[in-house]
Parts: sequence; structure tokens; C-alpha cells
Amino acid sequence: MSRLDLTTGRIDMTHGAGGRAMQGLIERLFHAAFDDPVLVRADDAAVLPAADGPLVMSTDGFVVSPLFFPGGDIGSLAVHGTVNDLSMMGARPLYLSSAFIIEEGFALADLERIVASMAAAARAAGVRIVTGDTKVVDRGKADGLFITTAGIGVGRVGVHPAADRARAGDRILVNGPLGDHGVAVLSARGQIGLNVPVHSDSAALNGLVEAMIAVDADLHCLRDATRGGVAAVLNELCDRSRVGMTIEESALPVRPAVQGACEALGLDPLDLANEGKLVAVVDAASAQAVLAAMRAHPLGRDAALIGTVVDDPDHLVEMTTRFGGRRLIQWRAGEALPRIC
Amino acid sequence: MSRLDLTTGRIDMTHGAGGRAMQGLIERLFHAAFDDPVLVRADDAAVLPAADGPLVMSTDGFVVSPLFFPGGDIGSLAVHGTVNDLSMMGARPLYLSSAFIIEEGFALADLERIVASMAAAARAAGVRIVTGDTKVVDRGKADGLFITTAGIGVGRVGVHPAADRARAGDRILVNGPLGDHGVAVLSARGQIGLNVPVHSDSAALNGLVEAMIAVDADLHCLRDATRGGVAAVLNELCDRSRVGMTIEESALPVRPAVQGACEALGLDPLDLANEGKLVAVVDAASAQAVLAAMRAHPLGRDAALIGTVVDDPDHLVEMTTRFGGRRLIQWRAGEALPRIC
Repeated sequence: MSRLDLTTGRIDMTHGAGGRAMQGLIERLFHAAFDDPVLVRADDAAVLPAADGPLVMSTDGFVVSPLFFPGGDIGSLAVHGTVNDLSMMGARPLYLSSAFIIEEGFALADLERIVASMAAAARAAGVRIVTGDTKVVDRGKADGLFITTAGIGVGRVGVHPAADRARAGDRILVNGPLGDHGVAVLSARGQIGLNVPVHSDSAALNGLVEAMIAVDADLHCLRDATRGGVAAVLNELCDRSRVGMTIEESALPVRPAVQGACEALGLDPLDLANEGKLVAVVDAASAQAVLAAMRAHPLGRDAALIGTVVDDPDHLVEMTTRFGGRRLIQWRAGEALPRIC
Repeated sequence: MSRLDLTTGRIDMTHGAGGRAMQGLIERLFHAAFDDPVLVRADDAAVLPAADGPLVMSTDGFVVSPLFFPGGDIGSLAVHGTVNDLSMMGARPLYLSSAFIIEEGFALADLERIVASMAAAARAAGVRIVTGDTKVVDRGKADGLFITTAGIGVGRVGVHPAADRARAGDRILVNGPLGDHGVAVLSARGQIGLNVPVHSDSAALNGLVEAMIAVDADLHCLRDATRGGVAAVLNELCDRSRVGMTIEESALPVRPAVQGACEALGLDPLDLANEGKLVAVVDAASAQAVLAAMRAHPLGRDAALIGTVVDDPDHLVEMTTRFGGRRLIQWRAGEALPRIC
């Protein structure tokens, strides 16, 4: 068995070669941290119990730069992202796979820290990492580490949020301050010339969604506002549901530090990525109850009702500004914020 | 909607940014090729029917270089690899996810070709690509394209091959010539100074496994011999089952061109990667019936019985050579063949 020096060692090509060095890495690092009885069997695939409902499947690749940022790292992000995608379908997330693409020369100490962070995030979210894969590419052929997770969840009876179910009169809710993840990563990257004291909001939203479903199982739409931010989510929901939306700038929860960074950089908090924020479109009759349930949950304390779904043949998202004007919220055409997740 | 020029266009950072350019790429390229009613809903996750049995889950990242090689490309490989991992647990593969990490500047025409190849491979294997993700990284931060697939299958009642189930007396089978994939990729890479007329064996093995199960549901072990080749598989099975194995060099199916390339390069066909070859350990009583079933299948025409499981407290794999000598088959310590899959 190859020895792993987790203090000063580095990934070399043998760690991806299918032989003993790879087996050593997998057992000493991944199996030790994830500690799942199915994973440690090290079979070609994980054999799991039958699920008692519709299957829900999702995947996300993570290429965030830098790998570590205030409030998280690529490991916790890779768990939260896929858990949240499953949660947005109203499913209970159960199992994750994780595939690592590692650049030759990557520090084993950093890898261990990231794997520990994934393990902690999975435990906190109540999901199991049951299967994985490790590949190593030559120096200069990747950017340190990319992680792709996939997830399986089980659907809940009577819960079927979908992007085409927003109806005129529905209310639009978010669970807290917008743009924290985007600003935290930009700040950690050092490329914006600012050191903004904001932590990423990266978090698993399955518990929050469960609390919302408990008061209104028939949530019409649920989306996590990651790449593209709330602006992209609202525009997509309008497109798919063939409605318009009106939101109130004064109702948008945004931290002063994030607002300040946005003003300095010419960005809009609505365009910034979040990793622990969802947009929910719910029936007007249950909006206050859902909002109260969100506020009672640790990840929804600053939840807000930000707007209303309206009839609009053009499917536009309009914002009433603090000064009483109206402004169109459009999808960003370009790319202000690469590699945010 | 952003226009895609599939003839001369290239991936830019907007294609991974979560806005309209990304949506355009996904709809025009991925949805058009994969053409699955669940995928085209473009929700955060795929909602699928309940499965009527134990769930089986697998994932693999693909970093093969070059992306195109005789007999396949990274796209077909990414389908075959995960389909095969599920098949090796005796499961019926049902659904795949696919996550793309693309380097800025990658040619859209190449991406379209790869996606078409994935779609064709999935159709041929009878699996659906139901969800996906696209990330773009800056030029120089990846090597063209990496694809990570995950898969869900459903287990079959009474079929539970496992690495720890080889018993003394069992027979060891392979479904055809060894090392084709490894030699095809090395040759395509141009770095071995040889142009060997060998095609990769990349193929989906679920149909072959089904034919084998039909004559003996109780296959003891099944492994696809990818990275590390047959040598790694046999050693792992010996470790896990606490047995030894004896194989016959004269019984190993190896194409003359592969044998010749190996001799020229100082490689052993047993160490070379395959992408359409499995090792099966079966009860002696059914070995001939399973072999006959394999030979009756297009992917097993050259199947062979290569050896026997023996009692051995040291869990060694020994080969009887053509000349009657004996030689130990060990795991490769190092890395002769990086980025083979």
C-alpha cells in the first residue's frame, strides 16, 4: 500500500492510475472521511435500498475559484449544490456520488480539508456519499480541483413544484439576503480590489423546504438562485409559466456590505450567485403562512415577500424602485462573474 | 436567445454563466441531441418513476486524451463507463446524468460531435440522459473537455455479484481480446511512435451481462477491466475474497497488433485499460454455460475461460506462461498510462 503524506504530500499521476496508489488514496482519504458502509465496499457501484416514491436525480459540476472562500469551499459547495437541486423539486435528498478531477501536484493537505468539509456538509444535510471516482490530470491541465456531484432523492406525494406553475396573483418569496456567495467569492479572489466582510451563504436547503412544505405542500415553483442570481430565476419562471412578475426593490433583502460592493463594481445584487437562497412562488392564500415557516427556520430568518406574479403577455420581470420608478429586470447577456460555483 | 454557430463557433465564458447564452447552448445542443422529455423540462433535477427494486448508483469522471480515438470518443466512453459500472453490480441501467466542464475556446463543432456520440451510445444501451450541467473554465484551466456521468440502475432479484464472493474452484472468464482500448488511445495520442490499427473496445455491456444472467443468475463476481486492466481486477478480487487465482497465458485473448505494441513498449496486455471487457468469476458447474452464452452475444464472440480461483493465504494471482513457467501478476505500482479514460 502506498503511503500518503497528508502534511506535505502532493497528488501525482499514480493516484489516478487504477493501481495501489489510487486505492490507498481512496481508502485513507475518501473512505475515512465519508465513512459510509456502502462506499467502503468499493464496488463499481453502490447498491441501495429501493426508494418508496418517484426518483429524483440531479448533477452539478463545481469549478469555483478560489477553492476556499469565506463561509465554505468547493467541497461543501458540491454537497449543498446538489442537495439543493433535489430539494427544489420537493424531493428528500438521500444519496450523493462525488467525482474528483485533480491536477497533478495538488496538495494532499488541501484535498483532505476539502473532503472533510464535504463529509461534514453531507452529515449536516442528512445525505450519504455512497460512490465516487478519482481522476488525475497532468499539471496545467486543470485548475487544482474540480468536483462533480450527482444526487438521488425521493419525491413526496402531492409536492410538485415546477417552473411552469406560477399563476397571476401568486406571491414571490426569498429566504434571506441576496448575493452573499457571489460577493464572498469575488472578494476571496482578490480581483475586485475589495475585501468585503461577507461570508458565502452556501447551505443545504432541504430542511427549510421541508418546513415550507409542512404548511403548504402545493408550492408552485421552487428554484435555488445560483448562477445568474434571482434575476435569472425570475425570468426563467416567467418564460416557462407565461406570466410576468412585479417585484419591490424596497422588499429585497440585501446586506449593506453586499449593496456597497455592488455599487462600487456596477453589479446588481439580483444578478449575483447565491448558494443557500431559494425563490418560491406560492399561492397568495398561503404566502404569509409559508413566510412565517421560513422565518422560523435558521436558514430563513430574513425571508421576505418580494413581489407578485402578474398577467403579462411579454413575460417581463419589472421592479418598482425605491423612488417609485419601474425598471426591467433582464437576464444578463454576458458573463460578469465566471467560476462562481 | 444567443445564436450558436456550430460550424466555426467556440465556447466562451458566457456559455457557463447561467444566462441566456447558456440556455441557448443547452437547448440547441444538449436537449436537441439527448431528446428526453424529462431533460428538456430543464428543471433543477429530473423527476422519474419509482424503481421496482434496489437502487444502484455509480459515477465516473472522464478525462481521456485525446478526446477522439479510433472506436470512440469521450462522449461514448462517458456513457459506456457508467452503464458498465452499473451492469457489473447486476443492475439494469436506467438513467444517466452528464456534467460538462468545458475549456473556453473549445470548438462547438467538436462539442456537437461528442454530444451526438453520447446520445447514440445512450440510445444503443437503452438508457436515458435525464439531467445535466454545464460549466466553462477559462482558457488553460482545463484540457478541452471533461465529462462526468452518474447513473442509476435497478438491481435484479437474486443477482448480487460482489468482489468478495470468489471461491476456490470458481472459473474466471473474460468476454474478448484484452488491451484494445489502451493501445487505441496510446496510438491516437501519437506519443508511442506507433500507429497500431486497433480500435477501442468501448461498448455498453448491459446486454451481455443480461445474457449471462439468463443462464446463471448467481454470478459470483463481475468487474469491468478499465484503468489498471485485468491485472488490477484479479488482484482486487483476490484481496477482497481472500483467495488466489491461477490464469493461463495461452488462454488470454489478445490481438496480435496489441501483443506487438505491448512487446515494443514493454507493456503487459493485462495492465492495459479496456472499456468493453469484463472479468466474471462463476461457479465451475455453470462456467461452460456462461461461456457459451457470452460467445453467442456480439460483445462476447471471443470470450475465454482464462483461469481458476484457488486457495492461497497470500491472495496472489499467478500466471502459467506459454512456456510452462509461473509468474506473479501484480498491480502496477506506478503509472504507465495516464488519462486513458
